[in-house]
Amino acid sequence: MAMWDGRFSAETNKELARFSESVHYDKRLYAFDIMGSKAHVKMLAKQGIIPERTAWLISEELDNIKRRIDAGDFEFKSELEDIHMNIESALIGKLGAEGARLHSGRSRNDQIALDIRLYLRSEIQEIQDLIVALQKALFSQAEAHRETILPGFTHTQHAQVVLFAHHMLAYMEMFERDRGRLTDCSNRMNVMPLGSGALAGSTLHLDRRMVCEELGFTAVTRNSMDAVSDRDFIIELLGALSIFAMHISRLSEDFVWWSSQEFQFIEFADEFCTGSSLMPQKKNPDVAELARGKTGRVYGALMALLTVCKGLPLTYNRDLQEDKEELFDAIDTVKMILRVYPPMIATMTVKSDNMRRAACDPSLMATDLAEQLVKQGVPFRTAHHQVGELVKLALAARKPLDRLTLDEMKQAIPTATADFLEMFKPEASVAKREIVGGTGYNAVASQLGFWRGKLA
Amino acid sequence: MAMWDGRFSAETNKELARFSESVHYDKRLYAFDIMGSKAHVKMLAKQGIIPERTAWLISEELDNIKRRIDAGDFEFKSELEDIHMNIESALIGKLGAEGARLHSGRSRNDQIALDIRLYLRSEIQEIQDLIVALQKALFSQAEAHRETILPGFTHTQHAQVVLFAHHMLAYMEMFERDRGRLTDCSNRMNVMPLGSGALAGSTLHLDRRMVCEELGFTAVTRNSMDAVSDRDFIIELLGALSIFAMHISRLSEDFVWWSSQEFQFIEFADEFCTGSSLMPQKKNPDVAELARGKTGRVYGALMALLTVCKGLPLTYNRDLQEDKEELFDAIDTVKMILRVYPPMIATMTVKSDNMRRAACDPSLMATDLAEQLVKQGVPFRTAHHQVGELVKLALAARKPLDRLTLDEMKQAIPTATADFLEMFKPEASVAKREIVGGTGYNAVASQLGFWRGKLA
Amino acid sequence: MAMWDGRFSAETNKELARFSESVHYDKRLYAFDIMGSKAHVKMLAKQGIIPERTAWLISEELDNIKRRIDAGDFEFKSELEDIHMNIESALIGKLGAEGARLHSGRSRNDQIALDIRLYLRSEIQEIQDLIVALQKALFSQAEAHRETILPGFTHTQHAQVVLFAHHMLAYMEMFERDRGRLTDCSNRMNVMPLGSGALAGSTLHLDRRMVCEELGFTAVTRNSMDAVSDRDFIIELLGALSIFAMHISRLSEDFVWWSSQEFQFIEFADEFCTGSSLMPQKKNPDVAELARGKTGRVYGALMALLTVCKGLPLTYNRDLQEDKEELFDAIDTVKMILRVYPPMIATMTVKSDNMRRAACDPSLMATDLAEQLVKQGVPFRTAHHQVGELVKLALAARKPLDRLTLDEMKQAIPTATADFLEMFKPEASVAKREIVGGTGYNAVASQLGFWRGKLA
Amino acid sequence: MAMWDGRFSAETNKELARFSESVHYDKRLYAFDIMGSKAHVKMLAKQGIIPERTAWLISEELDNIKRRIDAGDFEFKSELEDIHMNIESALIGKLGAEGARLHSGRSRNDQIALDIRLYLRSEIQEIQDLIVALQKALFSQAEAHRETILPGFTHTQHAQVVLFAHHMLAYMEMFERDRGRLTDCSNRMNVMPLGSGALAGSTLHLDRRMVCEELGFTAVTRNSMDAVSDRDFIIELLGALSIFAMHISRLSEDFVWWSSQEFQFIEFADEFCTGSSLMPQKKNPDVAELARGKTGRVYGALMALLTVCKGLPLTYNRDLQEDKEELFDAIDTVKMILRVYPPMIATMTVKSDNMRRAACDPSLMATDLAEQLVKQGVPFRTAHHQVGELVKLALAARKPLDRLTLDEMKQAIPTATADFLEMFKPEASVAKREIVGGTGYNAVASQLGFWRGKLA
Repeated sequence: MAMWDGRFSAETNKELARFSESVHYDKRLYAFDIMGSKAHVKMLAKQGIIPERTAWLISEELDNIKRRIDAGDFEFKSELEDIHMNIESALIGKLGAEGARLHSGRSRNDQIALDIRLYLRSEIQEIQDLIVALQKALFSQAEAHRETILPGFTHTQHAQVVLFAHHMLAYMEMFERDRGRLTDCSNRMNVMPLGSGALAGSTLHLDRRMVCEELGFTAVTRNSMDAVSDRDFIIELLGALSIFAMHISRLSEDFVWWSSQEFQFIEFADEFCTGSSLMPQKKNPDVAELARGKTGRVYGALMALLTVCKGLPLTYNRDLQEDKEELFDAIDTVKMILRVYPPMIATMTVKSDNMRRAACDPSLMATDLAEQLVKQGVPFRTAHHQVGELVKLALAARKPLDRLTLDEMKQAIPTATADFLEMFKPEASVAKREIVGGTGYNAVASQLGFWRGKLA
Repeated sequence: MAMWDGRFSAETNKELARFSESVHYDKRLYAFDIMGSKAHVKMLAKQGIIPERTAWLISEELDNIKRRIDAGDFEFKSELEDIHMNIESALIGKLGAEGARLHSGRSRNDQIALDIRLYLRSEIQEIQDLIVALQKALFSQAEAHRETILPGFTHTQHAQVVLFAHHMLAYMEMFERDRGRLTDCSNRMNVMPLGSGALAGSTLHLDRRMVCEELGFTAVTRNSMDAVSDRDFIIELLGALSIFAMHISRLSEDFVWWSSQEFQFIEFADEFCTGSSLMPQKKNPDVAELARGKTGRVYGALMALLTVCKGLPLTYNRDLQEDKEELFDAIDTVKMILRVYPPMIATMTVKSDNMRRAACDPSLMATDLAEQLVKQGVPFRTAHHQVGELVKLALAARKPLDRLTLDEMKQAIPTATADFLEMFKPEASVAKREIVGGTGYNAVASQLGFWRGKLA
Repeated sequence: MAMWDGRFSAETNKELARFSESVHYDKRLYAFDIMGSKAHVKMLAKQGIIPERTAWLISEELDNIKRRIDAGDFEFKSELEDIHMNIESALIGKLGAEGARLHSGRSRNDQIALDIRLYLRSEIQEIQDLIVALQKALFSQAEAHRETILPGFTHTQHAQVVLFAHHMLAYMEMFERDRGRLTDCSNRMNVMPLGSGALAGSTLHLDRRMVCEELGFTAVTRNSMDAVSDRDFIIELLGALSIFAMHISRLSEDFVWWSSQEFQFIEFADEFCTGSSLMPQKKNPDVAELARGKTGRVYGALMALLTVCKGLPLTYNRDLQEDKEELFDAIDTVKMILRVYPPMIATMTVKSDNMRRAACDPSLMATDLAEQLVKQGVPFRTAHHQVGELVKLALAARKPLDRLTLDEMKQAIPTATADFLEMFKPEASVAKREIVGGTGYNAVASQLGFWRGKLA
Repeated sequence: MAMWDGRFSAETNKELARFSESVHYDKRLYAFDIMGSKAHVKMLAKQGIIPERTAWLISEELDNIKRRIDAGDFEFKSELEDIHMNIESALIGKLGAEGARLHSGRSRNDQIALDIRLYLRSEIQEIQDLIVALQKALFSQAEAHRETILPGFTHTQHAQVVLFAHHMLAYMEMFERDRGRLTDCSNRMNVMPLGSGALAGSTLHLDRRMVCEELGFTAVTRNSMDAVSDRDFIIELLGALSIFAMHISRLSEDFVWWSSQEFQFIEFADEFCTGSSLMPQKKNPDVAELARGKTGRVYGALMALLTVCKGLPLTYNRDLQEDKEELFDAIDTVKMILRVYPPMIATMTVKSDNMRRAACDPSLMATDLAEQLVKQGVPFRTAHHQVGELVKLALAARKPLDRLTLDEMKQAIPTATADFLEMFKPEASVAKREIVGGTGYNAVASQLGFWRGKLA
């Protein structure tokens, strides 16, 4: 029989028990559940709600239970529904009436609200650290290739020449914003809900602020009805993880195409690729593809939680139990990606020669010509049009831009001078973009310096 | 070492192996994988691609492997990546070179396309049967309450009187459409992909039509590149399951509110409710809440798969491996709901007296008055306005409509006659709606007859 | 004042009026609203509920109103809320009391359910036709390039040689399945809801089957409560359109990368590209990018509607008004894509030479070697491993496979014979895949024949 | 001809033009586009890239153009594609070559990145203000009903007695967190992208920090490739708006059910309700329903943008144009809700008597009994079980808990004393929950004080 069954005349239906139990996944919270219970009994004793000795006994036995679970030596029973009841039941099994004092002034509604917050505070910290590791891998490739040149793309078309370091640092920015969102989310959730009871607080004289300090929260929740029905922080976190997953999907897309026979810009180490069961020659960038695909499940988890909460009346409804599996899956997914990406990036070969060869496409320097004309005083739109004509002329002549003679050039650009013919070296093009945030050698060196400091 | 590693110089990275392996979930497909392999070797032998005796040996050993897996006596190895390689490896372990002939003319790309189709054909059939069981439970309550009257709601406001049977049969319609969508989906996916190879077909002389007949498909796929990269049928199925879950969420919403102290229209049996860890009096309609909440994960799975497939170039990409866990979870979720809902519905108490009491609200008969006037020849808009005035007058007089005198009524409705005073009995109101599809006693009896026949 | 305001004491709040009105978008339904009203009054007259002459007057005036709206000569008033009330109000303005008889036995709840079905039946037909036009454009490129060879990709890596026609026909299959889903959806929604009233049917003696036949539906809805709250058909349609959009996103992805400087497999006509405001040389495949991006809004519409319907109690709730804007946007989006894609495809240049050059990559023929060994009687796994070794050996020797000597080949493949050296011609590879659904010349010709017949 | 067409030989296809143009919706950005251009030319002049006088002319004419657009006196041309080109073209039309200098060192890629940030900074501020107005409306109802008692619900079941003020303040917390998320989002996006060019920065000597200060940003973006392809801030904002919409959907759900005939806890003013076209008595809580329904489109917009960005390679791709319509719609939706909710809440009638009557349900005080036993020293689990038995006993006796005699009570609770019989007054129950965050009179008064100060 369940621990809440005083009023019931019939046993729970078996299918319902299976439908309803959550311990097969919420057991993952055990350490945080125990941490919260220990702070709770310490406070109960201080407030004289339970005897000091009871608190000591409970606390010791909770430590025992934790050790048993750590060691895989604890039998979780699905008929006890969830992690809370499994632990409390084991406690009462050992301590009898003394253990039965633990749940005083507490409901599973505020208890789970506490447990998830403790859990997420810890997970977010771990994810933050893993993102830094990813940034370090990107940084090391960026630093190693501070002079490697490749075409920068817009619309998947050659646009302008950029440094490989610059391209890698673009992802640094994305992951840094991800870290910012995670920090904001963590700070916002770092309030202590225990003492909210089922929904209305407690009639016992609990000291919520003591529990708050004990567990390292920055404040107590201000409204008990909100506290037990709030899952904002889970949705906000899934939102942040979705954006992170989106960034990974973009990086993966770059990697996948760069690995193709047509690009051959990078090659992953053998240990990060897999082959084909049919085609003996295949070496597939599976990690990047899988990571890109995993975006789906993170987005899906976000959509799932938004759906769960849509239109729920106050306060706690059982629908909210559906928050955990999607959350856990999204966290596991993100951490798994973050464990495999840094070594994959660190060991990938950057084929600088192929990149540079592609960057020699002279049409990449068309903007430079137009801006050169601006420097001569030609209005930009006129300059843009003249260079456009030049491109058209070169296409018609089936010549690349850098094979045109000065005379030919002058047909489109009347003010073209001999130095225009020198503007097609990709290194020269890069060297001109020393604007803050630009791809110039010094601008990028300065950004590398910034990141070196930040990641240290 | 993996079975595709001929060309590789380094072992797969450990994190990648964990990231990449799928056997911990795709092992669920083993029976279908084996079914497909048996059809494949039978055909290979018939075509002379492998010896008859080899086919016989492989087929026997596949049966052995199936028996071992059935019995839980088969060790799945994650380093063998997936269910296909686990089975093939066990086969080769036993038969040596003879087993190594199994994969001739086949790729994991067409193999998995086959396995999922076989699996889904079976799952869809099971879900169809479970929906029929749900319909039967609804039907039995409808039949038992063919004369039970309750308020029908629009905008969650009392609108018009309806029969409880009519309300239940509304859900019958929804679930019947769900069955229609599942049938369409199952038919559309029932084409045989094997022989598509990795993407381009095979150079071996395979007989695809034989495999097709052997496995009970209606046709072979017409284009190999499409066949290995198509996951439409999974998305279509998740779409159908999402609509089903939405229907369940609506039914659950009705149930949850009907169970509230304010409504008291129904009560679930104790064995389908749970209590509170804090509040001793609570009896919560948890099943309905959980089922409503589970809508989220089905929607999430749909969104996940749509995301995975968005923007993938042809043909197979590893992203597609992400199709299975979301699919399996959605199927399990739907089946779990379908196992617990029928007995919950069958055992719920319909509190006819409370329902009828609510249905005596005379404002529910306002439309009847207006339509009575139409029968008198009053234009509908005029009739509607007169009855609106009557409602306003009753509100001002703080009287229910059925307490107004004929004189008071005539202030708003000049042509009102004594029989207007008799129109507030809910049974009378129901009895007037004998239109096809309406809530009249005979109309509903006729619908019950229709469903009785259909469900037989 | 609104037409339903009999009972109200205060005017509608202005912000609410703006919040609540829908005529600025649902006016798009006017022709279908009028079509439904005409069938309705014809039936009312036949049933003797309104005089024949009234029916004639209303019908004539509805035609007038339609003509005025067609001509842009009708003032829609947002204070009249929706298209229904705008038309009815204009009718009454003209016909007075006779017009006030139109809405007899009808509610806006069943009226809108009718209007959307009529509208969608028409839109789906138009979309079907547009998809056929898209298929014809694909077909014409396929037919023109029935001998054009390119690398087929898996994992965005060269996998095996395929025909360009085969690649195009893969998309034919996808769009054909889309058409199948649209047909199923259209058939399932083709039932007639009028007569369901607000939720419970009508007390008037309506002849629903007459209206059904008049409007070309296949049946009347069986349950009035379901009929007014059902939006399944919209969600099902959005699901089908989402899969279509996903297909477009995949085709677009192929097109975008094929247009890159690295691939140069295709080039879009100038009139389907745009340039850059900064970079004079740019010619961007904008249509393909935009179409790929528009996948987002179609998916978003699907998620929006699923969210709207989640957890709604029976029957009609005002939330359901939110069905239309998302639906209209998704339909407009899909039709816009379908208008621009066929001419874009028809006018694109397929650069066969570049494709063939890429297809000469001898590693694409690795599978052919392995299958050749299978024909010699080598078990497939052994064959696969030997060819894998050959690839490794070639990589180490920095030679393409087709430059290896027979002696070198024999180091990996002991049974290699001189004809193995001849297997690297892409045409030869294609010619071997004559399996049904494969990329062989005849297999593809046969598929082209199939489609030629189908599209005729 | 477009302004980028130098290199093109053919005019843009008409369907493409329609497909591709964005000015019909991005014209909404005109004021921000002009604000950005003015800062840009001021800087160009200071840097000597264009003459001072040109800058002055351009700036004056931009002001003129803004005045014309403000006044509705500007013709937007869809063949000019977007707001940028429309304004630049008008400028050049007026100033000729001088106007053609505006776009120096700028691309539409960094220009639109700037415009949206300026626009969103402004919109977020407006939404923040509107949320405060909503909070004020909630606060005024909370303050007016600081002593109004109603049942608090969990699982939609009576749980414990709470103050109406406490229930309202729960929503205050949610909206306050929404404000926090909006602030974080606004701060994170407040970096200046101009100078990033198309993707690689500029070869001109631009002073980005000057533009940054001029426009009130806190920093310049650090990486040009990231800056032009980043839409994180839009997704983050849509995430925050989705959570807000979810909160509104929950509040709406409470309101809708509280308005039902079964609850009758509140009544909306007539001007915030609408009637029925068929049922004359209906007064529907349409605003709450519509607002709840609009959750769908906000969620849909979030999913749309996540989909758009999934798997895009760096840097700018035309897919990103799809960011705006969904964003604008979500912002408009949220603002529309925020304009109608505060007056609706301020004018709703709280039916305190009905609420109190429902709160007299003695089972609501069951937890109080259990906690009273804890105060007596009974272990909580024992206490919980005893009260559960009491509930069961009362159900069997068909008596409410407060009608049991002390003797009956002692059958379940051996230590029950006479004062237990006094514990069923709801006021007494509320008065016991003075814990921080609880529903006690003083606890809530203290929260009201907190919010009074905060909203002042």
